[in-house]
Amino acid sequence: MWLQREIRLDARPRGFHLVTREIVQALPELAQLRVGLLHLHILHTSASLTLNENASPDVRRDFASWFDRAVPEDAPYWEHTLEGSDDMPAHVKASLLGPSLTLPIAQGRLALGTWQGVYLCEHRDRGGARRLVATAFGE
Amino acid sequence: MWLQREIRLDARPRGFHLVTREIVQALPELAQLRVGLLHLHILHTSASLTLNENASPDVRRDFASWFDRAVPEDAPYWEHTLEGSDDMPAHVKASLLGPSLTLPIAQGRLALGTWQGVYLCEHRDRGGARRLVATAFGE
Amino acid sequence: MWLQREIRLDARPRGFHLVTREIVQALPELAQLRVGLLHLHILHTSASLTLNENASPDVRRDFASWFDRAVPEDAPYWEHTLEGSDDMPAHVKASLLGPSLTLPIAQGRLALGTWQGVYLCEHRDRGGARRLVATAFGE
Repeated sequence: MWLQREIRLDARPRGFHLVTREIVQALPELAQLRVGLLHLHILHTSASLTLNENASPDVRRDFASWFDRAVPEDAPYWEHTLEGSDDMPAHVKASLLGPSLTLPIAQGRLALGTWQGVYLCEHRDRGGARRLVATAFGE
Repeated sequence: MWLQREIRLDARPRGFHLVTREIVQALPELAQLRVGLLHLHILHTSASLTLNENASPDVRRDFASWFDRAVPEDAPYWEHTLEGSDDMPAHVKASLLGPSLTLPIAQGRLALGTWQGVYLCEHRDRGGARRLVATAFGE
Repeated sequence: MWLQREIRLDARPRGFHLVTREIVQALPELAQLRVGLLHLHILHTSASLTLNENASPDVRRDFASWFDRAVPEDAPYWEHTLEGSDDMPAHVKASLLGPSLTLPIAQGRLALGTWQGVYLCEHRDRGGARRLVATAFGE
C-alpha cells in the first residue's frame, strides 16, 4: 500500500514547533498499516524537520538559542545576503537538521519513543506556510 | 518482504560506539533480500545514530571532542536544566546527527562503503540501554 | 518495482556541488513510478549529501565558509591527524550533513520544492571520485 499526500502547515514564527498531532491527523490511513514507514519531506530550503523532546517547551526554545548562536546572522563571511540576514543562516540550519524524516509504523501507528515528537523547524522570520510531502507505504 | 524488530543495545558510556556487527547479527533475515533497505530508528531523544569511519577508535573520540565543544554543557542560555547539565546538549546533538539511518541492502547484505560503520551516539552520562526499531523491506 | 544502481560522481574540488541533474539522468526508470521514493546513499565517510538551494552559487560557497569555521582543521583536540588535516573535519562534517537522502517520487519525477537541489558535499581537498548507491522503489 502506498499513500502520498501534500500537507500544508500554517505559517509559524521563527523557532521550533511541535507538529506531530497535526501530521498524524492528516494521515488517517496510517491505521491500516500493520508494518511500514512514513516519509515526511519538507519542500523548502529554509525550514526543516527533526524529531526531539515532545514535552517541554523550554527544550524547543533552547534549540532556537543554540542554533541562532551556532549559525549567526551577522557573520562577516556570508556572501548570500540579498534575501535578508536570516536567509543564509536558515539554509545552513535546514541542512544541519535535514529536509526529511522517515518514521517506523507498527500496528497502524507511528512507532516513536515516548518522548519523541516531530518538530517543524522554522528558520526564517517570516517563512509563511510550509508544505510537506507525506509518503506512507507498507502492508 | 517486510521485517520489523526492536533491538536493544546495552548501556554504554557517553561517546560514540560502533554497533554495526551487533545490529546485523540481530537481523539474520537480511540475507534473504536481493534488493532493499534497512531503516534503523532510535526511540530516544538524547542519543542518535550516524554512519562514519569504522576502523580508528580515535575518530570516535574526536567526534566526542568536537560535539562536546560545539554544544557546551555550561552555556548560559540553556533554560531546560532540570534533568542535568548533560541533558539539553544531548537533545541538540541528537538532532544534529539524527534519530535514524536508512541503509541500502544488496544481495543479502548491507551495501555500505568499506569504511562505513553504524555509530550509536550516546550523548548522556548515564543513558542506560537504548532501543531501536529496525524495519527492513525489499524483495 | 525496485531499482538499484551505483552512480559514480567525478572528482570535484572541496566544496558544495549541485548534482541533481546528473543523478536524475542516471535514473531514467524513475519516469515509470507513479508514487515512490528514491534513496541516495554515499559510500564514503568524508563526503556527504544534502538538499538545499539550487539557484545561487554563493549559497554553496557560504556553506563551505560556515562548515570550515564550525569544524576547524587546526583544532588542538584532534587525535586522528594521520590522514591529513582535512580528514577529521571531513568526518564530522559528513555526519552533520548525513550520508543519505530519501526523496519523494510523484508522477515519474522527484517531488522536490522549486528551490531544492541535491548537493554533493566534498569535504576533502582531494576526495577523488565518489560513489553513490541509488535505490528507487514504488509503483
